[in-house]
Amino acid sequence: MEERLRKQLEFSLEIDKEKNIFRQTSLSGHGRKENDAEHAWHMAIMAWLLREYSNEEVDLAKVMLTCLIHDLVEIDAGDTYAYDEEAKKNQKGREDAAKERIFSMLPEDQKAELMKLFDDFEELRTPEARFVRAMDNLQPLLLNNSNNGDDWKAHGVSAAQVYGRQRGTKLGSERLYEVTDAIIRENVEKGNLKGENEL
Amino acid sequence: MEERLRKQLEFSLEIDKEKNIFRQTSLSGHGRKENDAEHAWHMAIMAWLLREYSNEEVDLAKVMLTCLIHDLVEIDAGDTYAYDEEAKKNQKGREDAAKERIFSMLPEDQKAELMKLFDDFEELRTPEARFVRAMDNLQPLLLNNSNNGDDWKAHGVSAAQVYGRQRGTKLGSERLYEVTDAIIRENVEKGNLKGENEL
Repeated sequence: MEERLRKQLEFSLEIDKEKNIFRQTSLSGHGRKENDAEHAWHMAIMAWLLREYSNEEVDLAKVMLTCLIHDLVEIDAGDTYAYDEEAKKNQKGREDAAKERIFSMLPEDQKAELMKLFDDFEELRTPEARFVRAMDNLQPLLLNNSNNGDDWKAHGVSAAQVYGRQRGTKLGSERLYEVTDAIIRENVEKGNLKGENEL
Repeated sequence: MEERLRKQLEFSLEIDKEKNIFRQTSLSGHGRKENDAEHAWHMAIMAWLLREYSNEEVDLAKVMLTCLIHDLVEIDAGDTYAYDEEAKKNQKGREDAAKERIFSMLPEDQKAELMKLFDDFEELRTPEARFVRAMDNLQPLLLNNSNNGDDWKAHGVSAAQVYGRQRGTKLGSERLYEVTDAIIRENVEKGNLKGENEL
C-alpha cells in the first residue's frame, strides 16, 4: 500500500480515541457524560441547521470540518473544563504538543490543512471559526438547560462565568447570543446558576 | 421566539438521543460498543480524509452532512445489525416511520433537504451517497480489524457475508474496495472470519 493511504488509514484509526475523552456535560434526560466525538458530531449538525443565523457568510464544508476536528488534540491533552481556571493555565502547552503529534500522522498537505483550521479556530480568525465557536458554546448550553442546569449546579458555576464564556457566541451569531442570554437569565431565576446577588 | 428557530432548537435537542443508540462494533483497543453519533462523526472525518479515492467527484459538504445524519432514524428504529437477517425484514418500515416523525420536527425546507439526503443515501442515487456508503462500511471494518475481528467472531460472521455488505464500498471507491478486500482476506487467513472452506 502506498505511504499516503497508509498514513490516512492510521490517522483514521488513531482518532477513534476521541470517543474516550469525556466532558463535563451530561446528555439530555439526565444522562451520562458526553464525549468529545459526540459533542463534535452534534455541533456539526447544528452548524448546518443554524447557519442562517451566522453573522457572516460561511463555507459550510469548512464549518463542519472545523466542528469535527476541533477537539482532536484532547486525545492527548484531555478535556479542560471551561470553568477550571487551574487546568486552563497549562492547556495551551498540552494542546500544542498534542496537535503536533496527532496531525503529523497525516500526509503533509492534510496536516497543513487541519493545522490551519485548528489554529484559525483557536484564534477565531475566520467567519467559519467564529460560527463554530458559537456552536461549541450553544451545544452544551442546550443540553445543560434541558437538564435543569445540573452541570452548573455540580460545579457551583455563576452566571458571570457563563457570560464570560458565551461572549464568543456573539462573535459568531448575534441572534443565537440572544437565545443564550435568555437561557442564562432563566437559569438564574430558577436558581440553577448563581446570579450577581449570590456572588 | 419565532416558530422556525424554536423548531430548529427542538430538533437540536432531539438528536442528542442518537448518542444512546449502540452498534455491534467495538471501539479500538477492545473497547466498549460504539454508538451511532460516534460512528457518524468518524465517517464524516474519514470522508474528508479519503475523498481523493472517491470514484466520482463529490460535494464535500453534502458528503459530510449525509454521514452525520444517515443514522438519525435509529433514534426510533434502533440499530439493525448488518448480519441480522431477521431484524432486516422489517427494518424499512421502522425506519420510514422514524424518518417521518423525526424530520417533521424541522421547518419544511430543512425537512425536505434531510429527507432527500436520507433517501438518496438509502437508494445510493448520487455520487455523494455512494461515497458515504463506502465510509459506512470502511469505518467499522477498520475498527474490527484493529481488534482482531472480535465483532465477527462474536457473531460467527463469514467472509461471504462481509463481502456481501462490502459490495457497496466498490460503488463509492474502487481503491478503498481493494483495501477492504485485503483486510477481509487477511482476517480469513487469521481465522477471524469464516472462509469458504468452513461454510
